[in-house]
Amino acid sequence: MSSVLLTDIATLVTNDPAAGPGLLGEIPAAALVMVAGKVAWVGAAREAPACDVRMSAGGGAVLPGFVDSHTHLVFAGDRLAEFTARMGGRPYQAGGIATTVAATRAAPDEVLTARTAALVDELHASGVTTIEIKSGYGLSVLDEARCLAIARQFTDETTFLGAHVVPPEHERGAYLDLVTGPMLAAAAPHARWIDVFCDRGAFDADEARTVARAGQAKGLGLRLHANQLEPGPGVQLAVELGAASADHCTHLTAADVDALAHGSTVATLLPGAEFSTRAPYPDARRLLDAGVTVALATDCNPGSSYTTSMPFCIALAVRELGMTPAEAVHAATAGGARALRRDDVGVLRPGGRADLVVLAAPDAGYLAYRPGVALVAGVWKDGRPMR
Amino acid sequence: MSSVLLTDIATLVTNDPAAGPGLLGEIPAAALVMVAGKVAWVGAAREAPACDVRMSAGGGAVLPGFVDSHTHLVFAGDRLAEFTARMGGRPYQAGGIATTVAATRAAPDEVLTARTAALVDELHASGVTTIEIKSGYGLSVLDEARCLAIARQFTDETTFLGAHVVPPEHERGAYLDLVTGPMLAAAAPHARWIDVFCDRGAFDADEARTVARAGQAKGLGLRLHANQLEPGPGVQLAVELGAASADHCTHLTAADVDALAHGSTVATLLPGAEFSTRAPYPDARRLLDAGVTVALATDCNPGSSYTTSMPFCIALAVRELGMTPAEAVHAATAGGARALRRDDVGVLRPGGRADLVVLAAPDAGYLAYRPGVALVAGVWKDGRPMR
Repeated sequence: MSSVLLTDIATLVTNDPAAGPGLLGEIPAAALVMVAGKVAWVGAAREAPACDVRMSAGGGAVLPGFVDSHTHLVFAGDRLAEFTARMGGRPYQAGGIATTVAATRAAPDEVLTARTAALVDELHASGVTTIEIKSGYGLSVLDEARCLAIARQFTDETTFLGAHVVPPEHERGAYLDLVTGPMLAAAAPHARWIDVFCDRGAFDADEARTVARAGQAKGLGLRLHANQLEPGPGVQLAVELGAASADHCTHLTAADVDALAHGSTVATLLPGAEFSTRAPYPDARRLLDAGVTVALATDCNPGSSYTTSMPFCIALAVRELGMTPAEAVHAATAGGARALRRDDVGVLRPGGRADLVVLAAPDAGYLAYRPGVALVAGVWKDGRPMR
Repeated sequence: MSSVLLTDIATLVTNDPAAGPGLLGEIPAAALVMVAGKVAWVGAAREAPACDVRMSAGGGAVLPGFVDSHTHLVFAGDRLAEFTARMGGRPYQAGGIATTVAATRAAPDEVLTARTAALVDELHASGVTTIEIKSGYGLSVLDEARCLAIARQFTDETTFLGAHVVPPEHERGAYLDLVTGPMLAAAAPHARWIDVFCDRGAFDADEARTVARAGQAKGLGLRLHANQLEPGPGVQLAVELGAASADHCTHLTAADVDALAHGSTVATLLPGAEFSTRAPYPDARRLLDAGVTVALATDCNPGSSYTTSMPFCIALAVRELGMTPAEAVHAATAGGARALRRDDVGVLRPGGRADLVVLAAPDAGYLAYRPGVALVAGVWKDGRPMR
């Protein structure tokens, strides 16, 4: 079992307060040792132990691989025409999802798999090493199960989102029975999580609670789309039900912030969606100041956020959400890990996974300072270079 | 002299109204022929002539290479600390330029050349095939001349910006004499253009006019930094003096818009600067509706816009400036060409340069629809693939 030394690291972001100062636990002039896919040692380069293999980070910063805890990667078709019309002034409504549902149902498995693989490659290129993938464009027993089975080829963090919207061919009550009955039964073997879109045009609090509890009864963890389009019950419901994450959190009341601050639910912010729907951004500053754990994710989907770039989301978080560069980097790594209830990723400390990003820049703050620039020079997953 | 056929183009953006409909003169299912570095033919793929070499665009869109008409690439040091402080609430002031001036003066030619080359590579990777580079971080006779000589190694579109700010070691009047006298004399052999930063904290209208006229008397074309930080005389001065471009145009009065609409000066918008200084964005919609020619450029510089990504600027232009995706793509290609008074670039028509971008997407609108994603799959300059 060979040991690999990665050295010439200008700044190592560990996210481990025991390893260095600040929110990011940073170590200057650092090195890191990997053994058997795990981090074995971190510290000052001058104190690094001898290893079998020595690699250079080229004087760049190294940080934990990004944890993208919210994506909708399995779909067919695109919605460029809808995007262009919206940029001309038409507001975003959840109903546009039906376009993608029709295209996804019509696509054979090979097409969906190849398209998902292409998006996973893009995520890896942007430094993402842990990916959550939701269903939600099948909305039939067969199509939800096959979308999740395809997603499972790429990640263990799969989420059943049959309760995305009510498809036009169903009456609401009958569709809820389907989602919580046969569709859940078919989806559960391929899923770790269940999710509900609790918002205007999707599902109300009672409906969301019914779906969430059915999923939890099947052993699935809970996450909720909440408070994206308007203030509503989603965030407080997420906290009440012990969800790992409430996602979007765009429109929050003081009571919502208070509930998050006193619960165990992460607030996952998805600024790519506000960017591409020209909606007001969530107020991360308010959440952080209240002590809420914040995650950043791409929300990659063809309707409201067709980006796979976590660096782009970090730049938006700093420009628009009131986060410092360090807070944004933390949210895209440790925050995402918390939103998936994982302690083996989003951190670089002995015993954790050797999933990391090497930047072509000396400081992680460059991800916000140099928006749009491809700064990810290397990505390692389980101790092996992916690119 | 061999001919090259580039085919399998989902959509060819020509920017030539004679070639196809719409602002972008688009041809679906297209091909393009290049001979001796020039475009020799464009049209429907099924009608393409026989050529010596056949290449595939892989079903992507093809568009003219981006024309980045405003960059400050020759500098040393960074200003990450200033950026981070500003994101925490400190406003941007032109005076931060002095930090970069000190670092640039201290850097040897080899360092400045290598750093400029790295940024030029980034610009090429983002699809830019024509680059303007300004001086303005030397601010001494020797340093302005050497920065321009370095810039000239990478482009013919070099701009003397001795009138960036008054460096602290000079009294205003004496510095203006220097800029219009010995510094201009040393810079002019390396420059095509002269530029003045006419704004709060930089130069007023009388000073700007003096510098501009001195440059024009030496045969240099004129461009002006105008109306970035507050409303002011810059834009109308640019039109009055026949400048090729007034750059920034963030704060405009009705009289400014009217002057631009009735003059020959392009309004060059630099949304990367508003993004990274958290300033209000310029209103492109108002300019376009008044009939003004608009260009988009990166403004790449270490203080206020450290991006080299024209796709990022296009996405911002659509989200924040009120441009349609087609208008933003046009501004980043044909608009930039107009801002440099060039008719051989920014367009794909027989006789023009074969400078083009191949996207990993079927439509140029994806540059706005998929923000942050590396969609530039290929770049050709003078009929040869650069990457």
